[in-house]
Amino acid sequence: MYTLEDIAAHANPKDCWILIKGTVYDVTKFLPQHPGGAEVILSYAGADATGAYESFHPSSLLETPPPGFKSLGPLSPSDLPISRNLELEVKRPPKPPLHTIINTFDFETIAERTVAPKTWAFYSSAATDLLSMKLNKEAFDQVLFRPRVMRNVKSVYTRTKILGFDTGVPFFIAPTAMQGMINLDGEKAVAEGAGEENVIHIISTNSSHPIADVVSSGKGPEQQTHFLQLYVNTDRPKTSQLLADAKACGLRAVFVTVDAHISGKREADERLKVDIPVKSAVSGAISHNDRKGGGMGRLMGLYIDRTLNWEDIPWIKSVAGGLPIVLKGIQTAADAKLAVEYGVQGIVLSNHGGRNLDTSPPALFTLLEIHKIYPEVFNALEVYIDGGIRRGTDIFKALCLGATAVGIGRPYLYALNYGAEGVAHLTQILKDELETTMRMCGVTDLSGVHPGLVNTRKIDALVEDGIEHSYVKWRPRSKI
Amino acid sequence: MYTLEDIAAHANPKDCWILIKGTVYDVTKFLPQHPGGAEVILSYAGADATGAYESFHPSSLLETPPPGFKSLGPLSPSDLPISRNLELEVKRPPKPPLHTIINTFDFETIAERTVAPKTWAFYSSAATDLLSMKLNKEAFDQVLFRPRVMRNVKSVYTRTKILGFDTGVPFFIAPTAMQGMINLDGEKAVAEGAGEENVIHIISTNSSHPIADVVSSGKGPEQQTHFLQLYVNTDRPKTSQLLADAKACGLRAVFVTVDAHISGKREADERLKVDIPVKSAVSGAISHNDRKGGGMGRLMGLYIDRTLNWEDIPWIKSVAGGLPIVLKGIQTAADAKLAVEYGVQGIVLSNHGGRNLDTSPPALFTLLEIHKIYPEVFNALEVYIDGGIRRGTDIFKALCLGATAVGIGRPYLYALNYGAEGVAHLTQILKDELETTMRMCGVTDLSGVHPGLVNTRKIDALVEDGIEHSYVKWRPRSKI
Amino acid sequence: MYTLEDIAAHANPKDCWILIKGTVYDVTKFLPQHPGGAEVILSYAGADATGAYESFHPSSLLETPPPGFKSLGPLSPSDLPISRNLELEVKRPPKPPLHTIINTFDFETIAERTVAPKTWAFYSSAATDLLSMKLNKEAFDQVLFRPRVMRNVKSVYTRTKILGFDTGVPFFIAPTAMQGMINLDGEKAVAEGAGEENVIHIISTNSSHPIADVVSSGKGPEQQTHFLQLYVNTDRPKTSQLLADAKACGLRAVFVTVDAHISGKREADERLKVDIPVKSAVSGAISHNDRKGGGMGRLMGLYIDRTLNWEDIPWIKSVAGGLPIVLKGIQTAADAKLAVEYGVQGIVLSNHGGRNLDTSPPALFTLLEIHKIYPEVFNALEVYIDGGIRRGTDIFKALCLGATAVGIGRPYLYALNYGAEGVAHLTQILKDELETTMRMCGVTDLSGVHPGLVNTRKIDALVEDGIEHSYVKWRPRSKI
Amino acid sequence: MYTLEDIAAHANPKDCWILIKGTVYDVTKFLPQHPGGAEVILSYAGADATGAYESFHPSSLLETPPPGFKSLGPLSPSDLPISRNLELEVKRPPKPPLHTIINTFDFETIAERTVAPKTWAFYSSAATDLLSMKLNKEAFDQVLFRPRVMRNVKSVYTRTKILGFDTGVPFFIAPTAMQGMINLDGEKAVAEGAGEENVIHIISTNSSHPIADVVSSGKGPEQQTHFLQLYVNTDRPKTSQLLADAKACGLRAVFVTVDAHISGKREADERLKVDIPVKSAVSGAISHNDRKGGGMGRLMGLYIDRTLNWEDIPWIKSVAGGLPIVLKGIQTAADAKLAVEYGVQGIVLSNHGGRNLDTSPPALFTLLEIHKIYPEVFNALEVYIDGGIRRGTDIFKALCLGATAVGIGRPYLYALNYGAEGVAHLTQILKDELETTMRMCGVTDLSGVHPGLVNTRKIDALVEDGIEHSYVKWRPRSKI
Repeated sequence: MYTLEDIAAHANPKDCWILIKGTVYDVTKFLPQHPGGAEVILSYAGADATGAYESFHPSSLLETPPPGFKSLGPLSPSDLPISRNLELEVKRPPKPPLHTIINTFDFETIAERTVAPKTWAFYSSAATDLLSMKLNKEAFDQVLFRPRVMRNVKSVYTRTKILGFDTGVPFFIAPTAMQGMINLDGEKAVAEGAGEENVIHIISTNSSHPIADVVSSGKGPEQQTHFLQLYVNTDRPKTSQLLADAKACGLRAVFVTVDAHISGKREADERLKVDIPVKSAVSGAISHNDRKGGGMGRLMGLYIDRTLNWEDIPWIKSVAGGLPIVLKGIQTAADAKLAVEYGVQGIVLSNHGGRNLDTSPPALFTLLEIHKIYPEVFNALEVYIDGGIRRGTDIFKALCLGATAVGIGRPYLYALNYGAEGVAHLTQILKDELETTMRMCGVTDLSGVHPGLVNTRKIDALVEDGIEHSYVKWRPRSKI
Repeated sequence: MYTLEDIAAHANPKDCWILIKGTVYDVTKFLPQHPGGAEVILSYAGADATGAYESFHPSSLLETPPPGFKSLGPLSPSDLPISRNLELEVKRPPKPPLHTIINTFDFETIAERTVAPKTWAFYSSAATDLLSMKLNKEAFDQVLFRPRVMRNVKSVYTRTKILGFDTGVPFFIAPTAMQGMINLDGEKAVAEGAGEENVIHIISTNSSHPIADVVSSGKGPEQQTHFLQLYVNTDRPKTSQLLADAKACGLRAVFVTVDAHISGKREADERLKVDIPVKSAVSGAISHNDRKGGGMGRLMGLYIDRTLNWEDIPWIKSVAGGLPIVLKGIQTAADAKLAVEYGVQGIVLSNHGGRNLDTSPPALFTLLEIHKIYPEVFNALEVYIDGGIRRGTDIFKALCLGATAVGIGRPYLYALNYGAEGVAHLTQILKDELETTMRMCGVTDLSGVHPGLVNTRKIDALVEDGIEHSYVKWRPRSKI
Repeated sequence: MYTLEDIAAHANPKDCWILIKGTVYDVTKFLPQHPGGAEVILSYAGADATGAYESFHPSSLLETPPPGFKSLGPLSPSDLPISRNLELEVKRPPKPPLHTIINTFDFETIAERTVAPKTWAFYSSAATDLLSMKLNKEAFDQVLFRPRVMRNVKSVYTRTKILGFDTGVPFFIAPTAMQGMINLDGEKAVAEGAGEENVIHIISTNSSHPIADVVSSGKGPEQQTHFLQLYVNTDRPKTSQLLADAKACGLRAVFVTVDAHISGKREADERLKVDIPVKSAVSGAISHNDRKGGGMGRLMGLYIDRTLNWEDIPWIKSVAGGLPIVLKGIQTAADAKLAVEYGVQGIVLSNHGGRNLDTSPPALFTLLEIHKIYPEVFNALEVYIDGGIRRGTDIFKALCLGATAVGIGRPYLYALNYGAEGVAHLTQILKDELETTMRMCGVTDLSGVHPGLVNTRKIDALVEDGIEHSYVKWRPRSKI
Repeated sequence: MYTLEDIAAHANPKDCWILIKGTVYDVTKFLPQHPGGAEVILSYAGADATGAYESFHPSSLLETPPPGFKSLGPLSPSDLPISRNLELEVKRPPKPPLHTIINTFDFETIAERTVAPKTWAFYSSAATDLLSMKLNKEAFDQVLFRPRVMRNVKSVYTRTKILGFDTGVPFFIAPTAMQGMINLDGEKAVAEGAGEENVIHIISTNSSHPIADVVSSGKGPEQQTHFLQLYVNTDRPKTSQLLADAKACGLRAVFVTVDAHISGKREADERLKVDIPVKSAVSGAISHNDRKGGGMGRLMGLYIDRTLNWEDIPWIKSVAGGLPIVLKGIQTAADAKLAVEYGVQGIVLSNHGGRNLDTSPPALFTLLEIHKIYPEVFNALEVYIDGGIRRGTDIFKALCLGATAVGIGRPYLYALNYGAEGVAHLTQILKDELETTMRMCGVTDLSGVHPGLVNTRKIDALVEDGIEHSYVKWRPRSKI
């Protein structure tokens, strides 16, 4: 039996012991073989790695440790550490049964109370004063319906197509990073839940799990559609390889994020330390606290290529192997027009859930701005929107105003707190709300939506109708 | 003397005992005769049915039990259950004296504190985020008066006509379901109170009491006007029969609800279990919890025909026996126009008190929309509005803007907490407030109202002025 | 020495004892001589009348009791009642020193904490949901300044003329009823404080004190200007007499209230009982609780002639003895125009402090409405406004927009809590704030105000620009 | 050893003892030599002057007391007073470490909790109801971005020029009075911190420290740019001298405050007593409570010349020795135009942080007003704005709308709570936020800003578009 002091004496690359779930391992020889890189293990050299280990590996893995992963024996009971993570788990209240959850806000409230503080901070935070995050929701609340009555609405259908792929519902699971933080199965559980209800899942470049594992957790690439969200790496060959892998795994489209060359200032996230470094199994990005604090979004985004610009589109196409390209993060009609000119297949109007630039416009404003300035965009590609969509009514409003489909982000993270079952349950809730809205508006299938069913008067006056500011003229500043 | 265990041993259709107010009954032979159906009783087989019993029967009924309803003797005192309902009653604070109530909000506050939680949830709840419910009230608050002074206002008169029938006031008691939940006399007490003050009462298809009983509780069909609210049954002959019965009982008009083919998602109502199944004496609808929760509105509405559409209007007329037809739940100028074209006598602009589709428009918006788009509608039929009307000032504003009369819903439910006297008291309060408003605006009888007495500027810009959206064009989605 | 039981045995008009400050009096013979009427005393027959007595009489009066007011001797000490009023006095916190009060809100906060609950309810209450009261203040807050800088503002002057009479400031003390409720000296203290600072005082028809006493408490009719507020009595000769008396006392103008043919529904006031009947020394109105509650405004207004209309203006002129006539309570441009046509000298745009009809327009809206519709009104008579004016900035805004002067109501009531000194202190505060505003805007005397100094954009769109509603047409209802 | 009574016996100009940090001094002969004037010392005659002493002198000064400052010996330990100031210090919570502060609001929150109440009141207070202060912030929050994506934003640069002088950032440290109140080093620490990050510092006429000391605390006049804020003294030669001194010290421009001929009514400041008189080392202004209360702003501003007007501009130029002149406090397009006509080099659009006239316009409104009415102003001089700028996003919005640079006031005061290091840290935070905003909007250097990057729709309608009010006409009042 070993003591904590014994272990601490072996804390360098040449002699590295770690503690996992009360057992001491000598991992010196395993270091060069670790798929996540040696440095991740070394940050726990001579210490307890249980929490970090469990975040990234199935619990069964240590039953037959890999070569070079040598079990030395148990820790002395009197020295047995209670892992910090475990403590948190103990203090957190139990989750109410899934069937008592009836809307997205229930999932959110429960997540706030039951997940680890750092996870909550990473998922829930938004840029600086949270104004855009609030506007996202308010914009939908301010659109009223003009419901048509006395229609036969006995049967209603929510199925549609996204980029030509069938989907049971006109919404998709927006890409979010590091889903393993709220549930060890992370993206795999999402894929499983999404498959049950036929909703398309967009896998993040910062996925906790490898793409192949995610895809195989659902119904498989033939029976279920997945897309890839892409952050372009400063090391471009890595991106080429990622796209090749994704295509090989059966992913059907690439959503290139264009609004996150740099991470937003998410203060709640910055203030909380990253206590356990986490690493993406896809991008390889690792989070460690730095002098600016613990902002996960910032730390995970350091590899993203800040030079990415319109002229890179042909290169992206060339390495995407023919997959449709969608630009995620368009915020002006002008850029929507450019997207058309550069020949992509779709755009996601998004302010990144209010996480990147505070007072950036709600996607609904951008949607209306395109109608005012370049309505022809809608004929040239598919337009999706995300941010602040929490109800079936919100989804229906977006469709009436020309969106092909909408993305749902944070709510699926909070649903993942309940695993695959939570993901499926959330999908059912939203589908149910959407069907109710359709019936109430006299619409039986999605070909029936149209702008006459909504009243956007309250926000119309807030939307620009030209590329330039209406009366403030541009007096160029001199270059210095 | 019996024990609870004794009773529990007789819990099937062939051998069914129940407990009511401490006495054990063998009701096996009564089951097929129960007007509400055997299943209602069977849900209490072998158990205490006191609460459910009292919700639907006069307390005198058991003095001479019906045939097949056999008294076996008392429960053992040591086993005497304290019914859950009784407990609630005990815990609830006493109601303040009626004369201390001076406005609708007092009735509401007292109801919240004193009625059973499920009843409060059913009556007070509204769709999802309650936005429409709040908008309903706010819309009225945002209309200002333009009061004319220096008029002789010594005497003022509030009497008018609705569909040609005399009424003491320009408002009616909007139809609401299951009034027996707040007061055992339910609709009967409403009829009695309405008769005292000459206000028209619209009886719901989901009335707790039979129409004949309701009508006879007031001044009788010759002295007092009642209308019928109609939900069309998927079993159409039942609707034909209901209309025939209603006409025979002396009801004078039919208000067909057109905005509730499906029930709204009223989350407060869904979350609370239906602990005592209740049943409408008119529609026969019964509420039981199902897998989606305890939403009374949803459960009571399962029989409603979701295929009902404009082409059914001639059939409705044919079975209504010449009674005037009013469509309740119109929410757009376009549908108001259709109502004219289909030849009905009136429309109720309503979003169902915000209970059906959240962010559906306040009726006041729809009223103004009709003025902007199809003002000729006002010449073709009578227009009523409901939702959020809580003050005499609100009533007066609606009349100035062209409404023939307005409906008052929830406030009368809350007034019914005080029985017929409460209903009469609320009517006096509203009439009093209306008279004060008339005097303050220099108007002595209702022929004096006109739009120049109100300023609707704050909401004008929010009302659409065309059938279609002003700048978002309709790009049809393909059918899938 | 007497006991409370002894006194209670003498409780009828033929044998009437009362208790005042611990001394028992036999007032049987005094009853017919009481200037306030026998019934006021009889309501305390056999009981303690201390509180009521002190509300209406100088404390020195009983040193030499009037004839027929017979002192019988002291109450038994063991029986000495602690008068309810006294108790309240004891529980109320002490008032902070006057010099620590630096704005109108301080006076209001202190009044709320220190005056009798019924007095607070009567003064502070407003109609039903208090919307107009709040709008009054908000309307001023939403007007912005456009301050001009770099002007010589070393010396500034606030003096001006109202109806041709000199005043030190462009605001007057608006008429408010029963000022004796907050301070026994009531209107007399107001007159004294007003005289010190040369501000004009409008005496209410429901003044606690006789007009002559009020006038003589200041600098006298030659040195100080008072106006009369008039409620026309259903007993018209009483009004003629009142006007004759007022003129004889030296009052200089008559402000006829035209928006209070009936009292508003002030719920806070209705809910609190009138525990001590109070009586106006001018109108003779007395308040007693009735079946509708204790609303002082309503109870004091029962004598007001509800038939009063434009055709009565010539009669008013005829009995006003040549005094200028001002109509108080105009709320539309249309009525402002009529006021011009009927030849009065001024109008007060007012919604009665939000006390009469809820959602009636803030006076600032009416002021702007007149500019939009009948700007010529400003050339034909003087226009004053009141309601929600709490700051020197508010006063300045009103003047910039064409008001000759503004009325300050409740703040003076709350200042009166400190007697004449409080009245003078409030005047100094407002004058000081006004001077600061003038300097900040680059204006040195009131001839320098103009609309270019304010920005009313936030409320402009809310003001009607025609007599009729802009798009809702009048479809006359038939007379019934 | 002395007792407190001993000291108290020497409390007049002829015999003056004071106590400083437990030592008794006879300062009678020192009185006439005190640079701050004898009266400041005399206000502590016979008493403990420790707090006041420490507010204005380096702690080392008493190691070698000046001539006439005679140490008598220690106070009796049993009598040792705990200075009030020290007590406050003890009660105040400790400041969190500087590196945990991540935005301006953190600095503000910490200042509120940790600085002396009077200091907080003086710095944080604003005019009367604080409406303008709130509007200042809200105006920025209501401007949305129109971010352009897919630009190469790897490198971004924030450097620019103000009045031709290089600066690392497009914001400057706005002048604020008496910075020594929050940190004994006051302006000197600001200069030091500003030098580190190359941000221009504007020194107030009411600086706690002499200009020469301030300048020498930074990198010196050749390496670092300082400007002077000027209040013109009623004693004009003092102003001439001040300008000559400032120029000699190397100050590069003069910002003449034109909106503070009189101080605003800052009620939080008025209510708190000035417990320790403070004196500006530049203007010589001293604060003492007067009958109106303890308003520091008011007390420090008594020397300011209220006659200052446009015709004084030539004189200011004549005594400014060729330094550029900027007018600070312009609030209308009309005055901006006059500034151009009078030939100054710049204007600061400002409502003095909402401290002077409540409901005066946010500078952002004035900026837009100039665009609407006199856009040519932008070609004739430099336009700066201040008030409510708390984020890098706010700075960027102002630049897009034509501001050359912006002023940051209170945040630097609160940062000074941490000395020079706090000042540098705040600058880094704002620069960082600005860089993030630039990247998010696709802008790499400040020549790239333009109005098309912002959406000001929410406030456009609130901005006047003419010198006069749009529909209220000016009816001149007669002069009295």
